[in-house]
Amino acid sequence: PKIVTLPGDGIGPEVTAAAVQVLREVAPDLTFEEHAIGGAAYDAHGDPFPQRTRDALRDVDAVLLGTVGGAQNSPWNSLARPMRPESGLLALRKALGCYANLRPVRVQPGLEHLSPLKPELARGVDILIVRELLGGVYFDGDRKLDGDTAYNTMRYTTPEVERVAKMAFWAAEQRKGRVTSVDKANVLEVSELWRRDVQALRDREYRSIHLNHEYVDSVAMLIVSDPSRYDVIVTENLFGDILSDLAAVIPGSLGLMPSASLGDGAGLFEPIHGSAPDIAGKGVANPAAAIMSAAMLLRHGLGRSDAANQIERAVALALREEPTRDLGGKADTKTFTHAVMEAIG
Amino acid sequence: PKIVTLPGDGIGPEVTAAAVQVLREVAPDLTFEEHAIGGAAYDAHGDPFPQRTRDALRDVDAVLLGTVGGAQNSPWNSLARPMRPESGLLALRKALGCYANLRPVRVQPGLEHLSPLKPELARGVDILIVRELLGGVYFDGDRKLDGDTAYNTMRYTTPEVERVAKMAFWAAEQRKGRVTSVDKANVLEVSELWRRDVQALRDREYRSIHLNHEYVDSVAMLIVSDPSRYDVIVTENLFGDILSDLAAVIPGSLGLMPSASLGDGAGLFEPIHGSAPDIAGKGVANPAAAIMSAAMLLRHGLGRSDAANQIERAVALALREEPTRDLGGKADTKTFTHAVMEAIG
Ligand SMILES: CC(C)[C@H](C(=O)O)[C@@H](O)C(=O)O
Ligand SMILES: CC(C)[C@H](C(=O)O)[C@@H](O)C(=O)O
Repeated sequence: PKIVTLPGDGIGPEVTAAAVQVLREVAPDLTFEEHAIGGAAYDAHGDPFPQRTRDALRDVDAVLLGTVGGAQNSPWNSLARPMRPESGLLALRKALGCYANLRPVRVQPGLEHLSPLKPELARGVDILIVRELLGGVYFDGDRKLDGDTAYNTMRYTTPEVERVAKMAFWAAEQRKGRVTSVDKANVLEVSELWRRDVQALRDREYRSIHLNHEYVDSVAMLIVSDPSRYDVIVTENLFGDILSDLAAVIPGSLGLMPSASLGDGAGLFEPIHGSAPDIAGKGVANPAAAIMSAAMLLRHGLGRSDAANQIERAVALALREEPTRDLGGKADTKTFTHAVMEAIG
Repeated sequence: PKIVTLPGDGIGPEVTAAAVQVLREVAPDLTFEEHAIGGAAYDAHGDPFPQRTRDALRDVDAVLLGTVGGAQNSPWNSLARPMRPESGLLALRKALGCYANLRPVRVQPGLEHLSPLKPELARGVDILIVRELLGGVYFDGDRKLDGDTAYNTMRYTTPEVERVAKMAFWAAEQRKGRVTSVDKANVLEVSELWRRDVQALRDREYRSIHLNHEYVDSVAMLIVSDPSRYDVIVTENLFGDILSDLAAVIPGSLGLMPSASLGDGAGLFEPIHGSAPDIAGKGVANPAAAIMSAAMLLRHGLGRSDAANQIERAVALALREEPTRDLGGKADTKTFTHAVMEAIG
């Protein structure tokens, strides 16, 4: 199987290299091809999603992404919108047809103290957020900034809602069977469509799933004050962006959080943390999220659950033996990766 | 001065009655006129914002609102959108021209243990969220649900951005002088306008204010993991809906959180908690947020800071002496209100 790696910006190259090292260990038959994305791609090729990268995706089995984007004051942020690093990421998602972003949020037993929440609230949290990734206000073409007025359009169609809802129901079937669909149907027509279509699909094809609907503002509260009430959460692109980042803080370190973006073709796997330009190149970034993303790549991208489990167990062990600096430990990228390799071997 | 009270739905009437009782005590010269809003108004007059209510606002000095809306499965939610309780609330905001919703989030010293956050994170939190209340995706007319597609439009103009940003800068001047403007400018044109106009206003008229810009997903994380970094947060309507509710959980009881909506005319003051239909009519609702909203009415609506301080001190005392059930105490609505009256008297 062919894996395309897209290291990207900031700490992306360091953590991606660590993940590739681990992948080589557990799956020696994989081949890797590295390509450019984001700000680094703009600097090298004048395009955050160069044609050469696009071409490489044609016969790929899975994509491993690092991180994309610069610091708040990066010159990249003054480029025309289509040339900015983030536009490369959006174009990549679109090119792969990855319409569902899956983000597991799990508090590891024994690591409750890392959470900003009280330990009794953090304990046992196990949520899967399914974010729609190719629709809504992110991709709709009806958008403009012109003089002293600007607008964007939040649009959804039934097929777009149904395909991501299916993914959520399917995931819930292997979990506790509960799905919370999140919208703002008391104000937005686009949410009314969302709610109607998710409910109709459940009633038609997933009658064993327990589905409820909640407003996005209410979920923002409850995910903090009572996170254990959630099993699978499914929502549209912008709400998903906000809620998945919010939920990601519960385990206490963004350095631990992987994500998988799935669709009709090859999947895209990436850590959810940002590019952390302040520590880039120093060899201290925590590669755990990138390595966990490699595990998701094996499980969801290649159907190799055994190898995925092997990595996840090794990461859990390494976190205890050689915690990284963001977790109050001392390990740098190399030491931590080494500990993971040892735990595998 | 004439106060219009709009008790609304659920526990709205109970908590509003408590707030009026307290207002009568500290400001005997106020006159009160009660009118209908929300689901209750629909039931009584076939309209969630009846003409009689609208007329009463013409010569009003301030409006005290209870709560609006029914349970998830309320028949009100199947009405045509303009007849639903929430539409009455939106029409009220519009009629009053209240474009800025101010929500103070303060963790009371000694009550850190109520927070879902670790006490060391909750301690000393003091944020003012300024939410734009009359623009964006809430009010734009370009919206439709038609068959299998639906959309809403998120639109802003420079004057809309500037008037609410002014309110935020003005508020920051009496606080720590720091404003964080929240947007999604890496994806949305409407956010690019927002960011540009907020920055330009700062550079033109508020050079003593320290202004920074953050993305909404990042703020959702940081408000939980490091809430003390914020002083004043200003943002557009939908982001403000989500973030202000999120921030509101930090103090640990929604029952304590007031809000003020200000604009060109009379202000609107309301507790931020919902209508809590499950406990409505039982006399157990915590009226603290409604009473604190009455204090905001005195301060921001009538310019009577002394009376406002008097109420706030009394509430803080009553919370210690007669905590309500949502705070782990025993006091019902009556007992708590009595304790506030005692503390004033
Ligand atoms: C960088 C940005 C475009 C992106 C998004 O909003 O989708 C990021 O926040 C994410 O969640 O992956
Ligand atoms: C009820 C609803 C329309 C309202 C809003 O979204 O503005 C509420 O959530 C609020 O924040 O006051």
